[in-house]
Amino acid sequence: MAAAAVFSYRIFCPIRCSAASNNHDPNKQKLNNISYSGNSTRSTKVDLHSQTTGVASTFVASVAAEKEGCRINEVQIRQNIPTKKQFVDPYRHGLIIEGGVGYRQTVVVRSYEVGPDKTATLESILNLFQETALNHVWMSGLLSNGFGATHGMMRNNLIWVVSRMQVEIDHYPIWGEVVEIDTWVGASGKNGMRRDWLIRSQATGHIFARATSTWVMMNQQTRRLSKIPAEVRAEISPWFIDKQAIIEDVPEKISKLDDTAKYVNSDLKPKRSDLDMNHHVNNVKYVRWMLETIPDRILESNQLSGITLEYRRECGGSDVVQSLCQPDEDGILKDGVKQDTASIRLLNGFSLASEIVDGGGLIASFEKGPLRFTHLLQAKGVTQNEEIVRGRTTWKKKPSSMPFSS
Amino acid sequence: MAAAAVFSYRIFCPIRCSAASNNHDPNKQKLNNISYSGNSTRSTKVDLHSQTTGVASTFVASVAAEKEGCRINEVQIRQNIPTKKQFVDPYRHGLIIEGGVGYRQTVVVRSYEVGPDKTATLESILNLFQETALNHVWMSGLLSNGFGATHGMMRNNLIWVVSRMQVEIDHYPIWGEVVEIDTWVGASGKNGMRRDWLIRSQATGHIFARATSTWVMMNQQTRRLSKIPAEVRAEISPWFIDKQAIIEDVPEKISKLDDTAKYVNSDLKPKRSDLDMNHHVNNVKYVRWMLETIPDRILESNQLSGITLEYRRECGGSDVVQSLCQPDEDGILKDGVKQDTASIRLLNGFSLASEIVDGGGLIASFEKGPLRFTHLLQAKGVTQNEEIVRGRTTWKKKPSSMPFSS
Repeated sequence: MAAAAVFSYRIFCPIRCSAASNNHDPNKQKLNNISYSGNSTRSTKVDLHSQTTGVASTFVASVAAEKEGCRINEVQIRQNIPTKKQFVDPYRHGLIIEGGVGYRQTVVVRSYEVGPDKTATLESILNLFQETALNHVWMSGLLSNGFGATHGMMRNNLIWVVSRMQVEIDHYPIWGEVVEIDTWVGASGKNGMRRDWLIRSQATGHIFARATSTWVMMNQQTRRLSKIPAEVRAEISPWFIDKQAIIEDVPEKISKLDDTAKYVNSDLKPKRSDLDMNHHVNNVKYVRWMLETIPDRILESNQLSGITLEYRRECGGSDVVQSLCQPDEDGILKDGVKQDTASIRLLNGFSLASEIVDGGGLIASFEKGPLRFTHLLQAKGVTQNEEIVRGRTTWKKKPSSMPFSS
Repeated sequence: MAAAAVFSYRIFCPIRCSAASNNHDPNKQKLNNISYSGNSTRSTKVDLHSQTTGVASTFVASVAAEKEGCRINEVQIRQNIPTKKQFVDPYRHGLIIEGGVGYRQTVVVRSYEVGPDKTATLESILNLFQETALNHVWMSGLLSNGFGATHGMMRNNLIWVVSRMQVEIDHYPIWGEVVEIDTWVGASGKNGMRRDWLIRSQATGHIFARATSTWVMMNQQTRRLSKIPAEVRAEISPWFIDKQAIIEDVPEKISKLDDTAKYVNSDLKPKRSDLDMNHHVNNVKYVRWMLETIPDRILESNQLSGITLEYRRECGGSDVVQSLCQPDEDGILKDGVKQDTASIRLLNGFSLASEIVDGGGLIASFEKGPLRFTHLLQAKGVTQNEEIVRGRTTWKKKPSSMPFSS
């Protein structure tokens, strides 16, 4: 898997130091120092805060220890990144689990994280994966100034790049629902890392979603993949566990689409607000571009149950992007009839009827196979187009939507 | 102010019952009941949760009380909207303040809520205002099934519509920073409500941002503005306090732009992902459309310090929108020289020089007046364009950005 990632680039997740890390260089900061004593004063101000004082002072203590070594600037005080391993983070509702190496964060689904049907959007779920992964590193005490890199990685000029991401969603959390997100890491081949996630209902314990991803290290200057240096391996390998959120023996290959793809969106241009801390297009925007290429009538009556992404190269702010999308013929109708608008409508009609007749579940409505699409995002090049990311999506019928409601 | 809102429509905030509220109708739900006992079991599972068991069981108790009256479906169990006033919400880090009528939520700025400069985006701040307003109603025990309406409003078929929103941002929170967001409501004229917000650094107590908004009630069927019925006034008026986040004697009028505006973006079309629970374009998208009309070179070296929005009508998924933007001439150069690219560069150059010479603060760099823009979003109509929202934005130089970095 790592070998396939030669042209990958950090996209999805935390885990890359930022070009904006000057903010953290005390010598470049002109801001005034702020005494950290204000922190502990305020943490006893109200009942809610006094419950957490014990933990908050652990944070302050570790900052204080660092203060002896070097001048602490305002940004460091405000961010308060721990320099030692933390077991509980009251502000993030975070907790170290899995015998001391995994991370669990309890999250409330916010009003702006849900779509018109009041369920969390895929984009919100991907955002929460990024957030919990970063907070896992945050709790470890290994987080350097950058966007997820460890101290050892910074010393070696290394960044994380993601090569593959796979998400399976059985149930979408709803507005106001409390969910637990677990995340942990493990070895992937000789020089890769796997990061997995589980989303679980806090009320019932039911697992809503699972995800796995593969990461390798890249030298920030040379842009070449790197082995994991011994000092970095010493940092991260104690956190590795042999547990997988998604068991998949042989990862399915995603075929490369060409210009004959059924649905094409061209001339997609990143906006300023699509760029993240690394000044690159955020992964969530990629997924939005992919899904927007699927016709509305399909999105209205179906919900995504799975997505796999294979990253090939970065996408910068000046790239012009094309999104290609092709439905699986054998996913829609296994008898080989070419899938088109008429056959989708026929299938939906048929499925609805069969559901009424046999009282079958929702899965039964796709007895001829689930709806599946292959995706490709590519950047327009001078001589040829360059692949950014390949994708596969799987869909199932929305539980509450009426067919043909459009 | 309320009189000016005749053609306004719910945009920004919580506070409107959703067309998707069928999800909450027990008769239309085919989902299985789930015992709520799982909740209290799980809340004692780990230390972090056991700290909050006392409060969590208050929630369960109020749900249990409701259960006696009617069948509770899975959605209600999962959302767990309180039916009685709550004073603390451990999952949201929420707290009733201001003598029992205000709401404070402690929030960590997440990795995907910041822009390339690692500070929270305006969009994230607006999202957090929406979230805390809704959670305030949530805590009050008044929240009905809809998107922020009280039980009395639901019985009277009323929804909240926002007519005006004003935000002032002195400092942007940074990635990982813990902030406290306070929100409260007050009377606005005879039939309006004011909702205010403050964002404060948890570590230092410094106030980062202030906001105020004005709301009126509308009949969901007739689309006419409504007086506040006695039963609704009895619900909400005990929560009113006479405290203002932003003191402004006479609100500045925002002039209406026409086709001669300097910057115009046409043919803006809402995407599926821009629609919120009400199937309307979310307010945050409005602001994005407004700001994207400002040239990149200005956005790169300046940050927004203030925005005022006057809402006129809703924007649906099928509208085609035009964004107009006009810089203030007297805001740029008070001597009346017409502002253009050359004069902006001249001003920046001059400001930088004067800062070096006189050692003045950042504000001093706008001694000729801050950079200001007037905005208009309008929908293309058959015979004429229809105003959606007017806006005013004020900008100041970014503290850490280098001039002419573009």
